[in-house]
Parts: sequence; structure tokens; C-alpha cells
Amino acid sequence: MEEDILYHFSLSTKTHNLPEMFGDTKFVCVGGSANRMRAFAQFMHHEMKLSGTPEDIRDICEGTDRYCMYKVGPVLSISHGMGVPSISIMLHELIKLLHHAQCRDVVLFRLGTSGGVGLAPGTVVITDKAVDYSFLPQFEQVVLGKVITRSTELDEGVAKELLQCSSELQNFPTVIGNTMCTHDFYEGQGRLDGALCSFSHEEKLEYLRKAYEAGVRNIEMESTVFASMCRVCGVKAAVVCVALLNRFEGDQITSPHEILVEYQERPQVLVSHFIKKRLGLIP
Amino acid sequence: MEEDILYHFSLSTKTHNLPEMFGDTKFVCVGGSANRMRAFAQFMHHEMKLSGTPEDIRDICEGTDRYCMYKVGPVLSISHGMGVPSISIMLHELIKLLHHAQCRDVVLFRLGTSGGVGLAPGTVVITDKAVDYSFLPQFEQVVLGKVITRSTELDEGVAKELLQCSSELQNFPTVIGNTMCTHDFYEGQGRLDGALCSFSHEEKLEYLRKAYEAGVRNIEMESTVFASMCRVCGVKAAVVCVALLNRFEGDQITSPHEILVEYQERPQVLVSHFIKKRLGLIP
Repeated sequence: MEEDILYHFSLSTKTHNLPEMFGDTKFVCVGGSANRMRAFAQFMHHEMKLSGTPEDIRDICEGTDRYCMYKVGPVLSISHGMGVPSISIMLHELIKLLHHAQCRDVVLFRLGTSGGVGLAPGTVVITDKAVDYSFLPQFEQVVLGKVITRSTELDEGVAKELLQCSSELQNFPTVIGNTMCTHDFYEGQGRLDGALCSFSHEEKLEYLRKAYEAGVRNIEMESTVFASMCRVCGVKAAVVCVALLNRFEGDQITSPHEILVEYQERPQVLVSHFIKKRLGLIP
Repeated sequence: MEEDILYHFSLSTKTHNLPEMFGDTKFVCVGGSANRMRAFAQFMHHEMKLSGTPEDIRDICEGTDRYCMYKVGPVLSISHGMGVPSISIMLHELIKLLHHAQCRDVVLFRLGTSGGVGLAPGTVVITDKAVDYSFLPQFEQVVLGKVITRSTELDEGVAKELLQCSSELQNFPTVIGNTMCTHDFYEGQGRLDGALCSFSHEEKLEYLRKAYEAGVRNIEMESTVFASMCRVCGVKAAVVCVALLNRFEGDQITSPHEILVEYQERPQVLVSHFIKKRLGLIP
């Protein structure tokens, strides 16, 4: 290939010197919301005590509004939108970017929000296995009209290291558990408050109970494709999501805005601690 | 329900007077990119000769970065991000919003970009049937761990009216054809340039040829859930996407930026013409 256009990043091997821009990347953190990933980059800038002002960081993908991307030292922070298809486009182009930039030994984190299953709101879940709607650790990918199944195993070592970080921080409750990935927020997650709902409150609770028994502790919308693509491409990866509510108790996210903002910072604080330890900035 | 929080719009029945804000809505236009849907709202403001300056329109969802939403006269313009899960969240909350606002006889349009199958770049496709990866007009929805199948039939009358509009405009080639909806941009669409690719150029062409024979003229990532949800909820809907490239000739989008910008305006020009006719602004 003479030129590789990373279309949804608005970057290309011809117009950008990717090894110079990204060659020193060691940690890539991704999350759904553009604002949140900008805030995370500014937070990491502060935490790593980099020179310059955190407010001045520039969106590397400013040529497009599909994703945003910030780089602070060895940390890349990228938004991926909502759902498997949206994050999958980003991951294809990210993995190509890391390849073109000749990056080595990169660790990839998804920092997200989720619905908790039997957990108090604010609990952080480090994903053990990313599972599908039938609680199996697999991702179904369509290739040329045929469905193939890929494993969604994540890196056990990184998950354990993250749990160790949380016990050092002692700021908020953290558990390791399975994360169920669905393809929508309402019917697929058993919510009663969507525009469409064909099941009862009792049927919803029964599904959530089955999920809990299968080790599911939270539900989100990206983990299976994230885990499977990282695994196939040989990238160590972890998923860290905060539970915004306990789905046994309701469907709507009713906590006040300030509380939700603080909850959303928890995965950032945990991963920041991990990165600072790996960089030797803290013992 | 005492209060309904439309979480991803950052709107609620308690904090916002939805009938007052949205009651006169007659046309809802949705598309993936936030910038493009802002530009469309400004364009419609100009086309309908509304008072005030188009640049002053305000994002109704400014409390969140998940979606953006603009209202100009009877037209609502909303972004939905990329992929089925992302648009499905938006549609659930939009359909609830239209219900709470007591809107009647609304027509919903998806204005998008797509890969063309045997079409010259820049051709606009009005979707006849939205089909899945096996070219069937159906959408598979998981409900409490069980897969159910929904029809993806769109409104025939609106599609014909749109084709009539295009023949009046005579600005660009327009066809009616089937639109294939996939869950990713690379492997699912038979692209050879993703981070992962397990098939040959010849296998890719064979899949595209089969799609063409089944009436598929373009490929995008939202049409099946858009069609099925609108159908179940009794909302008349149409999908209008421009083809940015001919997939028989390549995978990467290599046209210059200015050309792509003009292509992306074509569905907007077509739907604008439809709306102006319906409003009696043009004969």
C-alpha cells in the first residue's frame, strides 16, 4: 500500500509522520465520550507533571468529528463513541496507527461507564471476561456474510495489577467480574423504559439474576469487540468501567450530575495510578 | 412514570417542557456526524427563510456530548454517531421525545454517507429495502438474551416522493436500491485495508457481486435498525445516503476533501427539496 488513509482519524501515512507523532506511545486509553477523554488527557498531563498547560492540548483528529484524540507524553487518549461498530472502526485504525508508528509493548485500556448488576452505584469493575448476551466469552464477527466467533479473553496480569492499584488507592470499591456487552441500551439490557418494551419487570429481574449467577457484574456496549480485537492483534488490554446504577434497583440514571461526574473519574484515577507506577513516578 | 429522563439527550420531562419545545416538529433528519447535522440545520434555516441568523442556532443537547440536536422551524436535526447501537439509543429517546411532545405525522429521514456497490462516487441512494449481511430485509434484536427478528420495510410513498424530488432537481444521479447494513466498516464490508483481513481480493469482489445481484447498491451501518424501529413505532421513514466511492474499485476514500464535502451535501439538498415542497414553500 503506497498510502494508508486512516479515514475516521483524518490522518494518513503520506500527510503525517506517524512514527514521529506516536512512536513513543506506551499506553492507549479509550472511552466513549469525547469530553471525558479530553478531561482524562488533561488529568494525565497534570498527574505526570508534564511541562506546559493541560488546557492547551490539541485534538489530533481535529479534521474530523468522528473521534477525538489527545497525546500527553507516552499516553494516548481517544474517544470511540457508543457501541461495538463505533469502537471497532476506531480500533482498526488505532491498531494500524500503532503499527505504522512502530510502537512496541503498548497496553490498551477501555475506561467506561456501565450499568451495575448487584453492585452499589460508583463501584468500579475490572473486567475478568467480556461476555455476550448469553454470558459466553465470545464475539461474533461477520466476515463476507459468514459469522465467525472470536475469543474475548483479556490480559489477566494487567487486571490483577489494576486490582492491586485499587487496593493501594482505597478511594472507591473495586471488583473483578464479568462484563456483559450488548448491542443496545434498552431492550438488550432488559430496560423497561425504552420506546419499545415487550417484557415484564419480573422477566427483566430473572434475566439480570441469570447474568449475576454467570458472574456478570456490569453491562456496557463495547467490551467484547475491544477484547477480541486486542487479543487477535496481540495487544495487552483491560476494561475498567464504573457502575452508574444498580440495575436490580432501576433503569434510569437518576443520580445528580456532580455525583455522576465523580463516578466517571474513578476509572481514570485507577488507570492513572497504574500508568504512574509503570513509569516509576510513584513507588 | 413520574419523570422520564432522556439520559443521552440530557433532557427530561421534569426539567424541560417537551410539548412547548418540540410540539410543532414535522420532520426529523438524523445523520452520523455532529458537524454535518449542524450544517444541515443551518442550511434548512436558510432554505426555509426563517428569521434570525443560521449561525446562532443552539445545540439543544449541549448538556451531553453523546448527540447534538438542532431545531429550525418544524425541522429537527440530530446526530447519531456510527453504527446500529449508537443510532438505536438515539431512536429510543427520540421516539419517547416525540411521544412526550405529542407530535403527529412526523417523517423521519436518515441522511448519510455510504460505500457504493457498482455506482459512480457521488450517486445518491434512496433505500428501497434495508438488508442485513445475508441480503435479507430483517433486523435481529436481542431481547433478554433471545434473538427476535423484525422487518425493515421503509415507507414506499416517501421513497417515491424523494425520487420525484431528485428528478426535479437534476443536480446529481439518484437511484432507488437496497442498502446493506453491517456492524463494522472493515471485515463486515469486505474491506482489505483493515487491521484484520482474512480474505482475498477475489473473495471480496465475489461477495460484492452477490450483494449487487441481490439489489444492494450501497453499504452503511445504521439502516436496518432505523427502518425496523420506525416501522414498529409507526413512524414514516426514509434513508438517503450518498456513495463516497465505488467499492468494486477500492476500499479507501481517496477523493479530495472538497469533493467529499459536496457529496455529503447531496442528501441534504434532496431532503430539503422534499421538506420545502411539503411545506408549500415551492410548487
